[in-house]
Amino acid sequence: MRVPPGVTSKDFSDAIKRWEEAVGREWVFTSDEDVDLYRDSYSPFWHEDLEPIPSAAVAPNTAEQVQAVVKIANEHRIPLWTISTGKNLGYGGSAPLLGGSVVLDLKRMDRVLEVNDKNHYALVEPGVSYFDLYRYIQDRGLKLWIDVPDPGWGSLIGNALDRGGGYTPLRDHFDAHCGMEVVQANGDIVRTGMGALPGSKTWQQYRYGFGPYVNGIFSQSNFGVVTKMGFWLLPEPEGFKSGNVLVQRHDDLVPLIETLNYVMNSNIVQGTTTIGSPLLMSRAAAQTASGAGGSALVMSPGGPSVEDLEKIGREQNLAYWNCELNFYGPPKVVEAEWEYAKEKYSSIPGVKFIDGPTYTLPYDPKDVDKLPKRQFGIPSLTIFGLMGRSEGHMWFSPIIPMTGEAVFEAQRVFGQAYHDMGVPAINQIFVFPSSFFPRSFVILCGFPIYHDVEKNRRSREVFKGLVKAAAEHGWGEYRTHTAFMDTVSDVYSYNDHALRRLHETIKDAVDPNGILSPGRCGVWPKHLRKART
Amino acid sequence: MRVPPGVTSKDFSDAIKRWEEAVGREWVFTSDEDVDLYRDSYSPFWHEDLEPIPSAAVAPNTAEQVQAVVKIANEHRIPLWTISTGKNLGYGGSAPLLGGSVVLDLKRMDRVLEVNDKNHYALVEPGVSYFDLYRYIQDRGLKLWIDVPDPGWGSLIGNALDRGGGYTPLRDHFDAHCGMEVVQANGDIVRTGMGALPGSKTWQQYRYGFGPYVNGIFSQSNFGVVTKMGFWLLPEPEGFKSGNVLVQRHDDLVPLIETLNYVMNSNIVQGTTTIGSPLLMSRAAAQTASGAGGSALVMSPGGPSVEDLEKIGREQNLAYWNCELNFYGPPKVVEAEWEYAKEKYSSIPGVKFIDGPTYTLPYDPKDVDKLPKRQFGIPSLTIFGLMGRSEGHMWFSPIIPMTGEAVFEAQRVFGQAYHDMGVPAINQIFVFPSSFFPRSFVILCGFPIYHDVEKNRRSREVFKGLVKAAAEHGWGEYRTHTAFMDTVSDVYSYNDHALRRLHETIKDAVDPNGILSPGRCGVWPKHLRKART
Repeated sequence: MRVPPGVTSKDFSDAIKRWEEAVGREWVFTSDEDVDLYRDSYSPFWHEDLEPIPSAAVAPNTAEQVQAVVKIANEHRIPLWTISTGKNLGYGGSAPLLGGSVVLDLKRMDRVLEVNDKNHYALVEPGVSYFDLYRYIQDRGLKLWIDVPDPGWGSLIGNALDRGGGYTPLRDHFDAHCGMEVVQANGDIVRTGMGALPGSKTWQQYRYGFGPYVNGIFSQSNFGVVTKMGFWLLPEPEGFKSGNVLVQRHDDLVPLIETLNYVMNSNIVQGTTTIGSPLLMSRAAAQTASGAGGSALVMSPGGPSVEDLEKIGREQNLAYWNCELNFYGPPKVVEAEWEYAKEKYSSIPGVKFIDGPTYTLPYDPKDVDKLPKRQFGIPSLTIFGLMGRSEGHMWFSPIIPMTGEAVFEAQRVFGQAYHDMGVPAINQIFVFPSSFFPRSFVILCGFPIYHDVEKNRRSREVFKGLVKAAAEHGWGEYRTHTAFMDTVSDVYSYNDHALRRLHETIKDAVDPNGILSPGRCGVWPKHLRKART
Repeated sequence: MRVPPGVTSKDFSDAIKRWEEAVGREWVFTSDEDVDLYRDSYSPFWHEDLEPIPSAAVAPNTAEQVQAVVKIANEHRIPLWTISTGKNLGYGGSAPLLGGSVVLDLKRMDRVLEVNDKNHYALVEPGVSYFDLYRYIQDRGLKLWIDVPDPGWGSLIGNALDRGGGYTPLRDHFDAHCGMEVVQANGDIVRTGMGALPGSKTWQQYRYGFGPYVNGIFSQSNFGVVTKMGFWLLPEPEGFKSGNVLVQRHDDLVPLIETLNYVMNSNIVQGTTTIGSPLLMSRAAAQTASGAGGSALVMSPGGPSVEDLEKIGREQNLAYWNCELNFYGPPKVVEAEWEYAKEKYSSIPGVKFIDGPTYTLPYDPKDVDKLPKRQFGIPSLTIFGLMGRSEGHMWFSPIIPMTGEAVFEAQRVFGQAYHDMGVPAINQIFVFPSSFFPRSFVILCGFPIYHDVEKNRRSREVFKGLVKAAAEHGWGEYRTHTAFMDTVSDVYSYNDHALRRLHETIKDAVDPNGILSPGRCGVWPKHLRKART
């Protein structure tokens, strides 16, 4: 049996016995066979001693059982690593950051506690997946849409706490939550917002409650264990429309994005928009680029010039840039919105438009496979069919300004960084900037994971190099794999790491024994803080 | 010279001398004449010893001066009470909660640091008022709208930290902020969100940064002194339209609000909507009601029955309920949205509509007095012309669910509460439920303040009675006057005040000497905690 760091075998055995009493013997996992299931399926440490492997896992079924488990851990100072469903593949999955931590697995807490179709919200437990909530709503014929990330098997609570994003108007999952229940390290149960008022009628309807609004400190955090959370849902729209805007020249990206800001910040275009490039994604461009050992998607030194690429575009009638705009609302409104967007964009010379269909809703469930699922909040696992041929991936995901200039700079900086590190950019999965969150872009670069120690070591170095290159240009990651949490935290260093000092001050106050998810997002408990540096 | 509680005259004199060195002699106020200006103009304690009067005031001009002031206070354990402009009349104004506190007045920090009209945001200091930012934008001809509360002389930062609301799509002022700079009790300066990344390019464009998102804990709080804050702005819309929906019967409120939820949560109707009642506001109804010693606005026992009122409505052709819907966007879109809203509402028998004009924007600045200012984000002081004949007021402002049933229950409960306390409800300024925040209603009841000790004592008792009556029905105040912060905090008592315990745990960690705004929103520092109970 593995034992957590700093814990004696005897203490650990005692704790396990007490956990078994608290949650039932069958829900405490200690055999290697069981515990190995909690290892990161996409670990960048495959076949290395560095891989953080849990010592055990405990799966409580209620908030009261979570209290009991946490109290026992607190008494014995056993590090816990909380997961909801552990499906955040590419960011660490169900594995802890600190090897030997006990996984606190909340997947059994999978109750949909309330869904309200008049005020449009749900209250759920951490084990509730997007599929679960979607089915709950469909089974009852409720006129509500959820918002889903790729893929749909993850936990609403886990994804929101990781501050993940989706595709509909409620795509900022943390921002769309309303009200939490949190078990603290000392076992105390807190309800936040209006939930602090016994018998509250608006726990899922008004966010803030009274006094300091604490919810944010439980996101990307190890300050507590969230056991319930409310989410605002979208009333089923009566229509949906999408349209594509295509521009011909490299520099047209600047006005393309400037107008995108206008129509998004005016709430005319809603949901996630991704900047694409029919030209750069074309075979012709890729051939030109790979000849130079690069990719057209990032502007590697020695790669094709803008002029070369524009020429290919003209010859093959390929737009340099495009973006798809999504409109949610009654058919007449979404059509007026799309007409207006076309008017706004028509000032770009040579712009072309592709009108998508206007959907009249509700949709027929048997048509589900013909619909744009993500835009409709329909969970799926489709994304796995689109991934490359590696054994997994991890995400490099910096935030950049929502401007054409920033996109050009990012292409140049990351192209240069790949080049400097001697890695052909073509080996990376580079996805274009997306508006997963309002008013900024996320760039998602998928790094492949291999069952090859040397390749993974190299990838990790490249990853760290990119974090540094990004920071030098004022860009930071919105989220990262457990393997890089310290690396990313290190670049958020304003005033000699003042924010981290504040995080640590709060951590020491709310979890003095440092048992909850040590190291998560760069926040370490006092007794492990020195080890980091 | 007044002296803060628990501080010796010598220590206080020393501190004042050092503050004078730090901020300039003319910016430290100690004479009664100067300090009296910081008393609450609408104090519910007029002519009573209970009135909390500050001992002094200090007005730093930069974040560095704030650091210096706070460090000196921390050394001598002098309680500070931070205000931005101190214009939150009805909620305590510029006066501290704890008498003898030194007012930390940030009004001199009135710099608009950045306004971006491509990504639509501003970065400001605490002394910047809505008028200031509006003028800044107008002077430069920037195509941006701000969101204003009533009235416009307050601070953007102060109002957002109080979690105030306005009228446009960005009406939830705390939610519309992005990025903070905070001076901590120990003088450390923290930048939150992307501001923690030196040279960040997205401080005002992506909210969360990396790791625990702390911003919320600085709202309605005494955990730090906010010295900079970013705000998202609305791109100037090309059109605006409003329309009125009028329904005839008492029970029509239920479908009126049900559809309001649908159109608001679908982002078709944007901005604040207030439920009104042409009938209940009419002279005829008021006469009927006041005969029974009540008001038609709350259903006092013995007041007119629903049947009586509906009869008056039929006779005088007055709608029982109405609501104004606001639409922001290009003219063709807002017209399609209003047509759609009418379609949705047409299922209510007898419903009537009043079409407002469609405004084509931008507006001509010389027409400003003809425009619906609040809906257009134009600051004003108009509200003061609308208030009653008292010497001031304070606000009772509970949150209730956004349903007709909840509005009926609130009318009944508050009517009964007034009745039980022997106060004619007609003496209160009762304002109808408003959607200052998404997905819930705020009810605003203005309590008059008098230069009459007995009347004010009575008002305070009534106020406390209403807080209690509200809590018994699951409703809590979103914000309150300093005089009632403990009263309101007391009802947020889930799990024997677990949330308050968490607040106190954080307070003790980030401000161990308890110098920052003691008692704000029910959070007291350790050494004063016992005194409360």
